[in-house]
Amino acid sequence: MTQSIRVTAGLVVIGDEILSGRTQDANIAYLAKWLNEEGVALNEVRIVGDDRLAIIEAVNALRERCDYCFTTGGIGPTHDDITVDAVAGAFDVEVVYNEEALQMLATYYGPQELTEARKRMARVPDGGGLVRNPKSSAPGVRKDNVFMLAGIPGIMRGMLEGLRGELAGAEPMLSDAVTVFAPESEMAEGLAAIQDAHPEVSIGSYPFFRRGQIGAELVVRSTNVDNIPPVLAAIRRAAEAIDAEWVDGEATA
Amino acid sequence: MTQSIRVTAGLVVIGDEILSGRTQDANIAYLAKWLNEEGVALNEVRIVGDDRLAIIEAVNALRERCDYCFTTGGIGPTHDDITVDAVAGAFDVEVVYNEEALQMLATYYGPQELTEARKRMARVPDGGGLVRNPKSSAPGVRKDNVFMLAGIPGIMRGMLEGLRGELAGAEPMLSDAVTVFAPESEMAEGLAAIQDAHPEVSIGSYPFFRRGQIGAELVVRSTNVDNIPPVLAAIRRAAEAIDAEWVDGEATA
Repeated sequence: MTQSIRVTAGLVVIGDEILSGRTQDANIAYLAKWLNEEGVALNEVRIVGDDRLAIIEAVNALRERCDYCFTTGGIGPTHDDITVDAVAGAFDVEVVYNEEALQMLATYYGPQELTEARKRMARVPDGGGLVRNPKSSAPGVRKDNVFMLAGIPGIMRGMLEGLRGELAGAEPMLSDAVTVFAPESEMAEGLAAIQDAHPEVSIGSYPFFRRGQIGAELVVRSTNVDNIPPVLAAIRRAAEAIDAEWVDGEATA
Repeated sequence: MTQSIRVTAGLVVIGDEILSGRTQDANIAYLAKWLNEEGVALNEVRIVGDDRLAIIEAVNALRERCDYCFTTGGIGPTHDDITVDAVAGAFDVEVVYNEEALQMLATYYGPQELTEARKRMARVPDGGGLVRNPKSSAPGVRKDNVFMLAGIPGIMRGMLEGLRGELAGAEPMLSDAVTVFAPESEMAEGLAAIQDAHPEVSIGSYPFFRRGQIGAELVVRSTNVDNIPPVLAAIRRAAEAIDAEWVDGEATA
């Protein structure tokens, strides 16, 4: 089996509105897929409130254990936008104005309308820079391996466009699936044996109960495309051994 | 200002499928709202993969710093369902069969069909018990202050019904909102002054850009209902001071 390099990222989602249940997060799955396309595996996510010490702790944990650390939320102009300050605290550096960001804001709002509140959006941790946003004038902020993105999904996605190809990724993780129409518990022993026999892939089992059907989507993942078909074939045989119907792919896809 | 007791919970979401972006989480916001109804504040969420050491670390961190720790996912019958084993590891206890759960499974499947894989679903950390599920025969697992729930949203919600009234909660957090149709940056200075003058509430600002409208939903939170109206009034005055239109409530609600 080929040893593949694994490049990892962590994500800190910042916002009381997620923890209160007011807002349904829409960024985690999007960032996870984007990272996968860049050859980076999302390793851990932490959701914390608008709380300086909580952000510092989470950023320090994930920037140290992962190759990259992303944050979403808290980079706007209001009093509860404290991500830049907290990340500066995590690195133990000052917060400074970024000249390029000040220029961008002055161009956007006009010099007369560049209030103190708006200038907050040009603040970066000392030594940090900007993440270009090809879709709007709102940049994100970068400090070393930490990328601070907006919480609003449309703006966050624009910032990711600006980062395309910028990360040093490994081989993307590939996957394919078989859906088996049987209770997951009937497949469990066969699957465990297949996983044991094929350590070069990881097999995930995702049960569903819907529209009167019971089954599980069995997803096989590997960075090497050749590793996947033999395992899918073994899963199909295991399904037939218990007289279960199966279809290739994910029933939900 | 009345000092209110704050009862907190942490949540560990377990599943490679969330970190790969394959599955959009549907449990965090639901659990957050349910906890709020029970007078418990969700303090932090961690999303980790199907990895024993990662689960142990997250559960130990959150069960120690929060009053309650919930987990979702990984309590089914397949090889990638390792939550019970990991939580037992976190508490440094053995995994044992729960007699009541074995009985429930034997009744559901029939004694002949109670395979080793299905018996996995009756395993609990030593000293642990079950979380009743009034909506189905699938119980969750409890060990001290850690509640292990299913990852499938419908089953997870049934388990929460079984926990209604079981937690020792504090006063629920209350909230109300004003939506202001102006760029968040124009409201920022006024809002900061209002927050400074009213430390007895927390004010969150949630900007939106949609259907051609720019604005922000300003949410005022407190456990004391009397604290909220004066702050909403101050926000309305701040909106009028910058000639911005406003409506009561959340424009998205």
